Amino acid sequence: MSEPTAALVVIGDEILSGRTADRNINALARFLSGLGIDFREVRVVSDDEAAIIAAINALRPTVTYLFTTGGIGPTHDDITAAAIARAFGVPLVLDQRAVDILAARYPSGGLTESRLRMAMIPEGAELIANPVTAAPGFRIGNVHVMAGVPAIMRGMLQSIAPTLVPGRVVLSETVPAAIGESVIAVRLGAIQADFPDVAIGSYPQMGERGFSTELVLRSRDAARLAAATALVRELVDTATRERKNPAPDKG
Amino acid sequence: MSEPTAALVVIGDEILSGRTADRNINALARFLSGLGIDFREVRVVSDDEAAIIAAINALRPTVTYLFTTGGIGPTHDDITAAAIARAFGVPLVLDQRAVDILAARYPSGGLTESRLRMAMIPEGAELIANPVTAAPGFRIGNVHVMAGVPAIMRGMLQSIAPTLVPGRVVLSETVPAAIGESVIAVRLGAIQADFPDVAIGSYPQMGERGFSTELVLRSRDAARLAAATALVRELVDTATRERKNPAPDKG
Repeated sequence: MSEPTAALVVIGDEILSGRTADRNINALARFLSGLGIDFREVRVVSDDEAAIIAAINALRPTVTYLFTTGGIGPTHDDITAAAIARAFGVPLVLDQRAVDILAARYPSGGLTESRLRMAMIPEGAELIANPVTAAPGFRIGNVHVMAGVPAIMRGMLQSIAPTLVPGRVVLSETVPAAIGESVIAVRLGAIQADFPDVAIGSYPQMGERGFSTELVLRSRDAARLAAATALVRELVDTATRERKNPAPDKG
Repeated sequence: MSEPTAALVVIGDEILSGRTADRNINALARFLSGLGIDFREVRVVSDDEAAIIAAINALRPTVTYLFTTGGIGPTHDDITAAAIARAFGVPLVLDQRAVDILAARYPSGGLTESRLRMAMIPEGAELIANPVTAAPGFRIGNVHVMAGVPAIMRGMLQSIAPTLVPGRVVLSETVPAAIGESVIAVRLGAIQADFPDVAIGSYPQMGERGFSTELVLRSRDAARLAAATALVRELVDTATRERKNPAPDKG
């Protein structure tokens, strides 16, 4: 049974220059997990029209839903709407619905040239409501174009949520282990081989008291997840008893 | 004058599931900025061999340096080394240099089957020293393969640094503005048009007291950067005097 899939294009020089640490990848990942939509890929590209178009057109045929963040404000460096229009081969037009939304937000006479820029939308797109600052995002085809400011992006996700077809949610269990992962790696691999329908991830962590490991099991099948988790817990208990002095490992 | 360029492939189900918020993109971005290397693109892919190979082979011909993070530990879900070997069409071999490094780290008899897995390296690769937990990364062609644990990744970056050819560092200036960006957008765009060699970014921020904007100017030419920054500061001063009541805007 094939589940819906998604990808994200993060648009912004500020991420690639290191000035800003992205927060939208994780927010979208958690949102999609809650809807049972498989998040397949992220690309981060600069404020460059050719780079944006290439990423959009490479990804949109491969997933159910494509999302973008960034580049839809009123300034010269906000080129996402124009790039998306070009990627779809449609004109960028002044959208009356968007004009009305902006007109209602600003005082009379406040709908300046630069603010009207935020009403330039690819022809044929649907608007995405912005519950935070009004200026809308938009959807064209399977591409959902959102703001880059994290609070606005999350508000837009809430507007989009009812329009997405959810999948079966992936269930997960976490088993903490106060040992390095190499101690259990072989036996963990054997459990994984017996449970191809349960993804078992091993995540080493460096803390003040040396290394520990988190084992994360994920599956859409609750019974199989429970069975695999029981075996992993037993393995960790056994290995912890075997080892008095946990040895650090690489992650 | 063409400067060195870079891209990154982040490998890890845990990023796409939302369990873990990536911290390596920003760390690499800051590292590259310091070396004057242009960071062009990031892709985040799952622990899937075909996805890893596709990303590696798409990006490595397009940049001077490609980096990867994640998937080089001792467990079954660590498949990066095998995927890289396949991407380059070379065998994955037990690397004696890596074996020696690991043997020196663990007590006698500690070089278990799972730990030896961390010495499986694509044939012809150079090792990347790991100052944190010993188990090395590696470089093959222009691809630098690093651990996903942030502290180890940063340690490996320090090992890699002397081997990279730096570019001219991009200088930057930040002009804070206690006004929404749409107020200055048109005049800011005019400055940008006069300074094509200075990238001017406008970053709205939502704080407790409403919206503000950070204007970030970036250029490799100090004199041009200074000239553009002076004009932007003057614009912000003028616009701040003009506006008593800053209006919020979308980012």
